[in-house]
Amino acid sequence: MESCAFAPANISLVFETYDAHPPHGRGSLGVGITLTEGCRVRVQRSSDDAHRILVGGEAWEFPTVRTVLCELSSVPLRVEIEAAFPFGCGFGMSGASALAAAFAVNQLLSLNRGRNELGMIAHRAEVENATGLGDVGGQFNGGIMIKRHKFEPLTVEQLPVPPQTLHVRIFGPIHTPDVINSREKLQHINRAGHAAMQEITDAGSALTMDGLFRISHTFAAGSGLLQSARLRDAIASARAAGHAASMIMLGEAAVSTGSFPGSQPVEILYDGVSLCR
Amino acid sequence: MESCAFAPANISLVFETYDAHPPHGRGSLGVGITLTEGCRVRVQRSSDDAHRILVGGEAWEFPTVRTVLCELSSVPLRVEIEAAFPFGCGFGMSGASALAAAFAVNQLLSLNRGRNELGMIAHRAEVENATGLGDVGGQFNGGIMIKRHKFEPLTVEQLPVPPQTLHVRIFGPIHTPDVINSREKLQHINRAGHAAMQEITDAGSALTMDGLFRISHTFAAGSGLLQSARLRDAIASARAAGHAASMIMLGEAAVSTGSFPGSQPVEILYDGVSLCR
Repeated sequence: MESCAFAPANISLVFETYDAHPPHGRGSLGVGITLTEGCRVRVQRSSDDAHRILVGGEAWEFPTVRTVLCELSSVPLRVEIEAAFPFGCGFGMSGASALAAAFAVNQLLSLNRGRNELGMIAHRAEVENATGLGDVGGQFNGGIMIKRHKFEPLTVEQLPVPPQTLHVRIFGPIHTPDVINSREKLQHINRAGHAAMQEITDAGSALTMDGLFRISHTFAAGSGLLQSARLRDAIASARAAGHAASMIMLGEAAVSTGSFPGSQPVEILYDGVSLCR
Repeated sequence: MESCAFAPANISLVFETYDAHPPHGRGSLGVGITLTEGCRVRVQRSSDDAHRILVGGEAWEFPTVRTVLCELSSVPLRVEIEAAFPFGCGFGMSGASALAAAFAVNQLLSLNRGRNELGMIAHRAEVENATGLGDVGGQFNGGIMIKRHKFEPLTVEQLPVPPQTLHVRIFGPIHTPDVINSREKLQHINRAGHAAMQEITDAGSALTMDGLFRISHTFAAGSGLLQSARLRDAIASARAAGHAASMIMLGEAAVSTGSFPGSQPVEILYDGVSLCR
């Protein structure tokens, strides 16, 4: 028998982090958008001695997913992950893998854990392994979302932004732990992130996708996250074509409201994690 | 373009109702279980003047679903519903149709409404049309659930009941509005329902599927809902075979922990409504 769950990609446009004691209570506030593509996770019982995790057919250690498996299952599982975007590039693929794995294991083993509990298990696995601080909350709900409440990582509000096709270009990964475990980098990020969140709140119902991307771009530059020259060039070329554009956090990747050289279109998903149907 | 969503069937085992002013705030507390089969709803823009709802290919008026469409869409839609169980027989097919329709319309029209808002729109549509008082909350979450909090129709807790394959037999419909709009019938139901809820709470983590079904059966008999002779016979035959069995609320249908003459197996789904994937 096999169970399958899907969680969407989530692109972060703005964020600030908060600390907690114990540290697994850490998280982030910010704005994210979920996409129709993401991670599909298939789970079945394994005849091996230990959990076995495959990503695109290759064996991975994948501590974030392994943390979820160890939390939920006392029997060895075989987990097959198919990811629509590369890992580490700002699409929340580790959060999506962890979250979809939690839902699939819950169904496979008839654990009867609630949606919220599964979401929190995935969120804490991300935080403990420093692969993310806020994607899971977005992937749990879906849409164009803002997270405003500290210590409620699964609580989001929908932003009143008219949706549209977006365009992304991926250059490469950024190592998330280097950023979210650096106190100095976080100070810069949080100062810029807090200002960006305030700007979004002030805009209220007048916020547009273009406005959101402009705020995100100011944040990316002001936070020190936008270092890559080729990424800056890509954003500049999208802006030169008349679009709003920004960096996807945390990845060497750009997102724009219109197409630009080397970009691919992506669509917004208005739903969160679920079992495959 | 077309969007599709799925919501699981929900079988109610125990319930009590609560009133509210305005009356669309009505709802129920109780215990329900979601199944892997349910309603699949496909939505697309229509060239007609008005919303068009098809169930299994037949045109239906379907006020509960129409209420959802009118709430969410100012453009005419064509809605195609495929239901795995008959309507009116206690499987929450109207709630599932309303809830899945809300999710599908949200995606089709890029409305960016949050999960909770969509759930509440479907719940209120059920209540206003008296087709149900509590299925939507179960179908929103999924699992073996208890709803304990008045005025929070989407809030459930998972019951610590070891899951298993269930067996159902459907004889026919019960007209839900006749029950939930009758003050006298509700008095009986709520007295018995409240006692059953108390018993479930008292059982705590010692609750089993058999225990839950026994409490449900006592409730069905004590509430006056279990009137049908052939339904009583079916429950008796399942009990004679050594299983626990009860009535599915509100339908002329039986559910048992083991197979009995004329029954079909059903599996529990540990997830709520979602877009089709």
